[in-house]
Amino acid sequence: MSRYKMIVEYDGGDYRGFQRQVGLPTVQEEIEKALSIRLQENITIHASGRTDAGVHAIGQTVHFDTDKEIQTQDFGFRINTLLPENIAIKSCEKVNDDFHSQYNAKRKTYLYKICMSKVHSPLKRKYYYVCGYSLDIDKMRKASEYLIGEHDFRSFMLSDTEKDNTVRTIYDLRIEKVDDETLHFYVCGNGFLHNMVRVIVGTLVDIGRGRFSAEYMKTVLDAKDRSKAGKTVASCGLYLLSVEY
Amino acid sequence: MSRYKMIVEYDGGDYRGFQRQVGLPTVQEEIEKALSIRLQENITIHASGRTDAGVHAIGQTVHFDTDKEIQTQDFGFRINTLLPENIAIKSCEKVNDDFHSQYNAKRKTYLYKICMSKVHSPLKRKYYYVCGYSLDIDKMRKASEYLIGEHDFRSFMLSDTEKDNTVRTIYDLRIEKVDDETLHFYVCGNGFLHNMVRVIVGTLVDIGRGRFSAEYMKTVLDAKDRSKAGKTVASCGLYLLSVEY
Repeated sequence: MSRYKMIVEYDGGDYRGFQRQVGLPTVQEEIEKALSIRLQENITIHASGRTDAGVHAIGQTVHFDTDKEIQTQDFGFRINTLLPENIAIKSCEKVNDDFHSQYNAKRKTYLYKICMSKVHSPLKRKYYYVCGYSLDIDKMRKASEYLIGEHDFRSFMLSDTEKDNTVRTIYDLRIEKVDDETLHFYVCGNGFLHNMVRVIVGTLVDIGRGRFSAEYMKTVLDAKDRSKAGKTVASCGLYLLSVEY
Repeated sequence: MSRYKMIVEYDGGDYRGFQRQVGLPTVQEEIEKALSIRLQENITIHASGRTDAGVHAIGQTVHFDTDKEIQTQDFGFRINTLLPENIAIKSCEKVNDDFHSQYNAKRKTYLYKICMSKVHSPLKRKYYYVCGYSLDIDKMRKASEYLIGEHDFRSFMLSDTEKDNTVRTIYDLRIEKVDDETLHFYVCGNGFLHNMVRVIVGTLVDIGRGRFSAEYMKTVLDAKDRSKAGKTVASCGLYLLSVEY
């Protein structure tokens, strides 16, 4: 038995999320189907984490075990011929048997793309959250500083989730102005609660458009109450960018 | 009777081109349908030029006439509620009766997006040409200089087109490196022959990947022979960016 790690890109817009669900289109099912055909055995893959319905990935990481010996160099290319065009294997490498894509993940980085255009954008509709406001970037940067470090992020979690440990560490939250109407938010942390990135960005948008002060972010964090934070922004703007081990 | 000018953005991937064709989905038909419903009269729009099947627009310009008085400020917003989400009116303004979106166009700028990734990209597949090669940007820039100015661009035109006047002027051809794997080509001219931008970019790609020297561009230009140029690159990478009057 050998273990292999793969980097995967996918367009989440066509899927009900990463994780396999009976009768629904999922990324996991498509990849397992392609691997099982190629390797002629039933393959189960394990991801660094699920992504929700509509969320994209540039660098999702998965691992799987097989008895077959894989020529990793062109394995991705050969699997891609069996995958729909909205999923692609970007690389494949052999790893130690104790490597685990989820449990060994040290840092994950998400990218969230916002278009500030007041008018609906046909070209960005599937890959950005078109927020309709001009956002004050300096104010959002100031607000984001409150989130850096180890905190209880309960306020930024899907409200009906039962979870004991809601403490996570955010290493970096960077807001890049790409052009006059485009912002990229990069959030890097040791792990993320359900909806955490989307609620953080939603709260930053409320601050950036003037609904709250930058300091309000600290109030939200301290409250440990989902109702204090902003809305969960659209899944189509979110990308799992990379996972570090 | 009053004449109005509108700026339109659309995702060309879902259409068989701009121009109305019986029984096929076209951008023109969708916009005319929405305008006719809103204004309660049969509206015909005139564009700065057709775009081919699959080609996108960020700043297509159209004009139309109506007897109704239009409140231009929120007219686009009201039309957008009647349009599919892959088309949006970005602005509307009243113009002189002798304004013509096609005949008065002085400069048009097209944008062509290339992803140099060797691996298929699910997230870029609909909006970039994923060429699969690393391209030598300096060499392509050198080659593009031969195209600046007034020339007979017959070599860069769809081969079976009958056209007497194939002389056009290119004012600017700029290649921008967006990130390690992304290039944006901006081509500005007084007008373009059928497929001209896509054949120019296709020839630059052949030069950039080492198939031809930079000087070969002059050979192609002088030959006035479509077979000397590179291939017509994918429509999904092409955007009509702006039209100046």
